[in-house]
Amino acid sequence: MTTDSAPWSREEFEAQLRAKEKYYHIYHPYHELMREGKLDRLQIQGWVANRFYYQIKIPIKDAAILSNCPDRDTRRLWLQRILDHDGYGDDPGGIEAWLQLGIACGLERDALLSLQHVLPGVRFAVDAYVNFARNASWQEAACSSLTEMFAPTIHKERLAGWPEKYPWIAEDGLKYFRKRVSQASRDVEHGLAITLEHFKTREQQQHALNILQFKLDILWSMLDAMWMAYIENKPPYFSVD
Amino acid sequence: MTTDSAPWSREEFEAQLRAKEKYYHIYHPYHELMREGKLDRLQIQGWVANRFYYQIKIPIKDAAILSNCPDRDTRRLWLQRILDHDGYGDDPGGIEAWLQLGIACGLERDALLSLQHVLPGVRFAVDAYVNFARNASWQEAACSSLTEMFAPTIHKERLAGWPEKYPWIAEDGLKYFRKRVSQASRDVEHGLAITLEHFKTREQQQHALNILQFKLDILWSMLDAMWMAYIENKPPYFSVD
Repeated sequence: MTTDSAPWSREEFEAQLRAKEKYYHIYHPYHELMREGKLDRLQIQGWVANRFYYQIKIPIKDAAILSNCPDRDTRRLWLQRILDHDGYGDDPGGIEAWLQLGIACGLERDALLSLQHVLPGVRFAVDAYVNFARNASWQEAACSSLTEMFAPTIHKERLAGWPEKYPWIAEDGLKYFRKRVSQASRDVEHGLAITLEHFKTREQQQHALNILQFKLDILWSMLDAMWMAYIENKPPYFSVD
Repeated sequence: MTTDSAPWSREEFEAQLRAKEKYYHIYHPYHELMREGKLDRLQIQGWVANRFYYQIKIPIKDAAILSNCPDRDTRRLWLQRILDHDGYGDDPGGIEAWLQLGIACGLERDALLSLQHVLPGVRFAVDAYVNFARNASWQEAACSSLTEMFAPTIHKERLAGWPEKYPWIAEDGLKYFRKRVSQASRDVEHGLAITLEHFKTREQQQHALNILQFKLDILWSMLDAMWMAYIENKPPYFSVD
């Protein structure tokens, strides 16, 4: 076994995973425009309506992972994600908070739920994530959730910047993001522990990195579809008579 | 039952399916540039390398359909598609012809087969087609193949226009297209017969139209991803340091 193929230590493996942050969708030009306050009303609405599709598929994705997981202790922890998004007891959950964000941005609840604004490119990217969770092992699917390592920055950025940059958005619409910052940290610890434990050989560790890259590709691809539609004004079939 | 919900006649249903031609990717601006001879070498190569992913997934998709089809007579006919693409006996098949096209455009065989040039957005769109074929009924999947009704025009256009517009492409690279024109007509007859027979009520007929639209969305979405990468020069992570 050469030095090149020796497994990374736990610390080095974690560092390799975290180094993928450079591909996080925070660096997509759509997010840069968003951060700089340069998106107009329709561009914000388009983003919310399309991100909504991702949000509603998260519990589906997590249920697929549960259905592939024979370990009860893991399921007890992983189930929390479904409770977070669908809600439980008095907590209306993340999907409802996202609907509130959409309403604060001037969208109708029914329009959001109908998915009429969801772009095909966004649908295909998000569905790729769900299908991966259905077909991969539960540990591979847990690894694909690790973009959550990078999410707190983007949530904090929105909390800090949106009230000033987009004053027309009712500020209680940001409730979703306030809640997600603390949940994401807890989720990451679990997903990271599974990943560091499961992917042992160098080949397996590289596979884990490829899985994380796949997930990053999904997030970037979603914004590419939104860029074409809302920034370039080239939504599907724009050139058709 | 009101007039609005009465099933369309066979003729009217077929006309409704054919009317979807207005959304065919022949009208995408990428294809318009291609037709006008305005694509450069890299833009042609990018298109071939990405379309190659679609081509290699067709036999996978058709095998998924076979695996959902309990009707032996249908399978005997549908299997021909796999023979066409993978090849049989002395016929090297459509995938080999597509490799020859890539080589004629200056790409290396290994580079094409490695899929290194396949854009995430293209991958997600094509995989959506394969996953649909896996999970839908064989008749629904047969309906999704009906964009073949519109394909002969695009094949003839390339046969007519490419030697003049792109003289640097070795003309025997167009072998694939010459072969596909006749095969597509035969395939369409079978797919159309299945569709006209299976989708009976107005609701089912509308569902068939939605399936065809889904497939049109896939083809358009593939070109959107290529447009971002090769025309806008915004491939994935272009803005990352």
